[in-house]
Amino acid sequence: MAKSPELEHPFKAYGYAAQDASGVLAPFNFSRRATGEKDVRFKVLYCGICHSDLHFIKNEWGFTTYPVIPGHEIVGVVTEVGSKVDKFKVGDKVGVGCIVQTCRSCQSCVNDLENYCPKQIITYGVPDLDGTRTYGGYSDHMVTDEHFVLRWPENLPLDAGAPLLCAGITTYSPLRHFGLDKPGVKVGVVGLGGLGHLAVKFAKAFGAEVTVFSTSPAKKQEALEGLKADHFIVSKDLEQMQAASSSLDGIIDTVSATHPMAPLLSLLKPDGKLVLVGAPEKPLELAAFSLIMGRKLIAGSAIGGIKETQEMLDFAAKHGVTADIELIPMDYVNTAMDRVVKSDVRYRFVIDVAKSLKAP
Amino acid sequence: MAKSPELEHPFKAYGYAAQDASGVLAPFNFSRRATGEKDVRFKVLYCGICHSDLHFIKNEWGFTTYPVIPGHEIVGVVTEVGSKVDKFKVGDKVGVGCIVQTCRSCQSCVNDLENYCPKQIITYGVPDLDGTRTYGGYSDHMVTDEHFVLRWPENLPLDAGAPLLCAGITTYSPLRHFGLDKPGVKVGVVGLGGLGHLAVKFAKAFGAEVTVFSTSPAKKQEALEGLKADHFIVSKDLEQMQAASSSLDGIIDTVSATHPMAPLLSLLKPDGKLVLVGAPEKPLELAAFSLIMGRKLIAGSAIGGIKETQEMLDFAAKHGVTADIELIPMDYVNTAMDRVVKSDVRYRFVIDVAKSLKAP
Repeated sequence: MAKSPELEHPFKAYGYAAQDASGVLAPFNFSRRATGEKDVRFKVLYCGICHSDLHFIKNEWGFTTYPVIPGHEIVGVVTEVGSKVDKFKVGDKVGVGCIVQTCRSCQSCVNDLENYCPKQIITYGVPDLDGTRTYGGYSDHMVTDEHFVLRWPENLPLDAGAPLLCAGITTYSPLRHFGLDKPGVKVGVVGLGGLGHLAVKFAKAFGAEVTVFSTSPAKKQEALEGLKADHFIVSKDLEQMQAASSSLDGIIDTVSATHPMAPLLSLLKPDGKLVLVGAPEKPLELAAFSLIMGRKLIAGSAIGGIKETQEMLDFAAKHGVTADIELIPMDYVNTAMDRVVKSDVRYRFVIDVAKSLKAP
Repeated sequence: MAKSPELEHPFKAYGYAAQDASGVLAPFNFSRRATGEKDVRFKVLYCGICHSDLHFIKNEWGFTTYPVIPGHEIVGVVTEVGSKVDKFKVGDKVGVGCIVQTCRSCQSCVNDLENYCPKQIITYGVPDLDGTRTYGGYSDHMVTDEHFVLRWPENLPLDAGAPLLCAGITTYSPLRHFGLDKPGVKVGVVGLGGLGHLAVKFAKAFGAEVTVFSTSPAKKQEALEGLKADHFIVSKDLEQMQAASSSLDGIIDTVSATHPMAPLLSLLKPDGKLVLVGAPEKPLELAAFSLIMGRKLIAGSAIGGIKETQEMLDFAAKHGVTADIELIPMDYVNTAMDRVVKSDVRYRFVIDVAKSLKAP
């Protein structure tokens, strides 16, 4: 018979777990494995709240099994390393994002694109290599293969940097891969939330000319003054949209509500690229002509590989890119989730885990 | 008052035109302009029948004005050149494809991508620079700005080469642009008609490993033996499709009937590219997740620029790529159109214009 989460591993651990599709998070005792040869054990200091945490704990994607401890924007300090770990030592500041293991041998893994490995093990809610379940960063500590642990740059804030591990790399990677990372390139960012605000910051750091598209006119000031975007367009305003027609080299579309593609494609120059990083549940409608006339493309992109995530953290430290965050205690997490539903956060909640998570 | 087509220009011309949405083609007298400084006048020898000719004469895209003389796969021999023409002389074999003029100054034109110039003047059925209508290659002769006239390679057949000017470049260009032009690359071709059979031939000439996808099992022998494709898959056979999952670097999708994207996207490896060159009338359904999981993309592509079209003709001559054609006389054209509707042609009709078009 399978052992309980509390007894299956030798190291006691605790965190906040959801037990059912209500998604309510409550204190939870479980356990973590012994430190393997290549493992890094670390105390969790901060953990960002990603919108997918919410989808997952409420089983909105339909494959959640309970109990689940969410959290994949995790920053901590190393407390123990395995005998064959050579990248980290006790006391190092580290990060873990969305992935904790992959096959290490497929073409994607070989190309440093672990994020597209079909056998990837994500940070929470799925079976680990040993058959036990992975638990995320809303918890006291983590133990992770060093390959999936990031070095935390010296001058990158631990709290405001945490969201870079998911929201940051999710926007940085497509900007880089699709050539939207050059001075003067004209980039649109659709949606101004956790992902969108980091897309703006990275695009600006690359030297791009950035236009923010939002359904909400109220976000104009935030976009232009707060985030230093160059232009702001209300995406429902046909006249503004028309005026921007054929003006962009690429768009990072962060919106996860179903929305029409044609108006966005019309904003692109020939050879323009529309990259989806938000995933609407319902299929999108796409007129082939709107791609053919101008050799445009629609692509998707999911987080980034480990090597690129490290590169992104180093770039963020160098260019002062961090998330705008609201730091909260662990016991505020259910209220925070309600506010995430309403997009009532500028722009990311980060849990002050070390200071506020008490052993049950 | 506007002059009649027969009197508006100094040079008498004749061809086969449709007068209404019945699309029936019949002998028609019109006229062509005097040879301008940069113009090349040429006698039409052969003209391919493209499926878009059919859409156009029946007004299936809704913007046809009559009378219309179709034809944009035109091969001929030069009879006169303007005083400032330097690329051609009388007696040269030449070709004209889908475009006869563009703005020559936009970014697309400057980048040799006249095919994406928003001001392009297509070969038939639209206003020319002087306000008169353009008439296509189902006619005795053409007069065209030399920039849009292609040199015909010495050893490229005039009749079986004609379809390269539309169907050929439409498939060659995306194979090149999207990196599907390298030995060992795994390319899928969806649909085996005028476009599809040339996609197979070009991909094979590039050294790619080619899989043909068709709804019709009857096409297996043609694909493998006739066209030398490496593999053939019946796209309705779930088992065959599953076995090919995540195996392709790219797909050229030539089908212009509405069809699901998800099964095609599942055939792609990470970073795989699905390129649409056929344009279904109804919007396609696209699940964002099927792009995001694997950083896949859907793109469109339309013919090619003039420089690339010349490169394609030279490549075709060098590698022996021509269309499989059925050569027909001019007065067979209405029957041919009926057979195009039924896909009853292997794979392209070419009209033997010089031998069969009689002056009315």
